[in-house]
Amino acid sequence: MPTTLVGATVEGRPNFVTIAHVGIMDLGSVSLGMAKAHYTNAGIKENGTFSINLPSTEMVQQTDYCGLVSGRRVNKAKLFNVFYGNLKTAPMIDECPINMECKLMKVVDFPKHDVFIGEIMATYAGEAVLADGVVDYGKVQPLLFTMTDKSYWKLGERFAQAWSVGKTLTRDE
Amino acid sequence: MPTTLVGATVEGRPNFVTIAHVGIMDLGSVSLGMAKAHYTNAGIKENGTFSINLPSTEMVQQTDYCGLVSGRRVNKAKLFNVFYGNLKTAPMIDECPINMECKLMKVVDFPKHDVFIGEIMATYAGEAVLADGVVDYGKVQPLLFTMTDKSYWKLGERFAQAWSVGKTLTRDE
Repeated sequence: MPTTLVGATVEGRPNFVTIAHVGIMDLGSVSLGMAKAHYTNAGIKENGTFSINLPSTEMVQQTDYCGLVSGRRVNKAKLFNVFYGNLKTAPMIDECPINMECKLMKVVDFPKHDVFIGEIMATYAGEAVLADGVVDYGKVQPLLFTMTDKSYWKLGERFAQAWSVGKTLTRDE
Repeated sequence: MPTTLVGATVEGRPNFVTIAHVGIMDLGSVSLGMAKAHYTNAGIKENGTFSINLPSTEMVQQTDYCGLVSGRRVNKAKLFNVFYGNLKTAPMIDECPINMECKLMKVVDFPKHDVFIGEIMATYAGEAVLADGVVDYGKVQPLLFTMTDKSYWKLGERFAQAWSVGKTLTRDE
């Protein structure tokens, strides 16, 4: 899964937590599976907003750090240049090549997790990661994560076109 | 996102559809964001079961094909060796290195999508993709997908350890 830094205002201050258990719901909304023990959850519920920031591989140390320490104890926002959009309470990270500002739609309750479903109100992407007007993930260099071996991975090569490479099989139908 | 082949029994027959809009909810459950137009949705609702199969990059043609054609018209199960687990109605693909058999827990309704949330009842992984008893995604070679440029990508190199690489920053707190 892509590793993200989730931003929220908690007790009046910007905070960020590392979350790789994300999901895509429909084309305009996303989910975050967040253990209830996280300091950030209360802030998302209080303000009804959060951000999803995609760090690049070169931000691996700061990203991992935000999953190691709690905002209860440490001001993690000092690591980043923080900016805000129209929602005002969803802090975003300027150093991340992609930022999404989200409005909380629904919380799905699991025994030990809150799953926050949010509508994406705005997406920010620097010119440096665009190609032909759309995001080029080869330029984003997302930080991928696997839980089984607790590892971070790079994205490999783009090698085929979707809704296209399978057309060779339609002749066999 | 990882590209998956979702299996379900539809009108009494095994069917598979390509879905990359997946999500992780808590450690034992997952989501599928599926456009309501898909033939498969009715089968998931009827039986309350589905499977998630992770194809490897070498299955890119068959995987893409399952997103190009509808099970209403074509028997896509003929492409694969199909097997079943305890749930009986969640067809799985033997050629895929990882299979998960899921029980439907909840449907979250979006205007044009059904989001199916399922509890993972069993996971199947061949010896060939294990290392030290856990799944090694370097061996799985998952088929990654980006929507912006409709592309399939390979997984790159493992380059850092999670809950570890960020510890260098804790000395600066």
